[in-house]
This record gives sequence, structure tokens and C-alpha cells, in this order.
Amino acid sequence: MSKTKVLPLLDAPVSEEVAPCCPPLTERPFTAEEAETAARMFKALGDPVRLRLFSAVASHEGGEACVCDISDVGVSQPTVSHHLKKLKEAGLLTSERRGTWVYYRVEPSVLAAMGKLLMLPTAA
Amino acid sequence: MSKTKVLPLLDAPVSEEVAPCCPPLTERPFTAEEAETAARMFKALGDPVRLRLFSAVASHEGGEACVCDISDVGVSQPTVSHHLKKLKEAGLLTSERRGTWVYYRVEPSVLAAMGKLLMLPTAA
Repeated sequence: MSKTKVLPLLDAPVSEEVAPCCPPLTERPFTAEEAETAARMFKALGDPVRLRLFSAVASHEGGEACVCDISDVGVSQPTVSHHLKKLKEAGLLTSERRGTWVYYRVEPSVLAAMGKLLMLPTAA
Repeated sequence: MSKTKVLPLLDAPVSEEVAPCCPPLTERPFTAEEAETAARMFKALGDPVRLRLFSAVASHEGGEACVCDISDVGVSQPTVSHHLKKLKEAGLLTSERRGTWVYYRVEPSVLAAMGKLLMLPTAA
């Protein structure tokens, strides 16, 4: 009952700066398309368990972790795998199989894009 | 069928810097409590219509808008009011009634807190 796909060794497609998504939220009203893209990322982080797993991966040594490293959030391993898959689908994590385990890594360009979204112009 | 509460003129409780929530996602694994708080904010932005409305308010002249200003996202006014209420409950917007209309304003400290959450330590 494999929950993870075997991936070829990916050269993660790191964009130059940030994932092309959307302007800062304060710049102008989002178009429907921009809102779809950005909402998908926010939604992926809109679940407490998923957010704990994401921060566990993001803060793990070397910026990557396998399911074996981050199983202490009080849910079963299949549930962990399910949530990691959701984060991957949202483009927030990339994964790579090495031997028995699949390793997850935060996609920094996407994180940077989300951070940029939330930036204030000139916070008084 | 009023969808909005009449609020007293609130002095918005602006915290010194950012809303006390959570460390950057990359710093250490979130606790259950931190994840609950942060997930609520992310979830509020995890809907395309809500995100469009939020960016409409955030980018509106003077940093505030009433329902009358932001009705062009293709949903009914009650739906707009419903989504604005959700954003308010998540602490992302504050509101104030002035005459006929309720005006919504982005809570900058919360936006800053979310941006801080997503900051990378030293993106290579």
C-alpha cells in the first residue's frame, strides 16, 4: 500500500527568485487566476497538522526530512504521508526517494513567493 | 437579516510589532497550539473568493473598504459579507460601522506576523 510515488532524481526546478504567482496582497485586487493559485498554497497550510509537519520539515537539519523523522505530531504514519502529499501537490514541498524512505524538502521559491504576497508596502 | 454586528468604535488593539503567534516556519517544529493559531489565518486565505476580497480591501485607497467598494468579484453581497466575516474572525480584518456601511480594514500586525512566519532564514 504505497502512498508515495517513486520519483526520478529530480533537479528541483528552482526558479530564479520566487515562483511566479501574484503581487503583494496590498498592491491591487487579485485576479481570479492569481487568487486560485495563491489560495491553493494558503489552503495547504490551513490545517494544524499539516502546518506542524511543514514546520517540522522546514526546520529539520539540512532542510529535509523523511516520514521517519517527523512522526511525533500525534497522527498515524499514513496520515502523515497523506498530509505530506497534499503539501507536495500545493507545490510547498518536493520529494525524492532514497532507498527505503521518501525525503521531503521545502520549496524555498514558493515560500518566498508567499512571504512576498504578505509583504506590506510601507508599514507605518 | 443583518450579517454584520454593530461594533462600538474600536481602537484597534494594535500590538507593538506583530501579532504574537509563532516563530518562522523554518526555525523549529510548531507546537500544537502555534499550529492551531497560524492554521486559522492560513485557512482564512485558503479560498479564492476570500483571497480576492482580502486583496481588494488591502489594496483599496486608504487601506479600507466597505462591501459597496468591493462587490466586483462575481458573488452576491451576502456572500461577500459572509467571507469578510470569516476574515474578521481569523483576525485578518477589523471592521467599523460608519453610517450605513461597515468598513473593513486589514490588520497590518497580523499580516506582518504571517509574513514573518514564511521568512526563510538565509535563502541560499
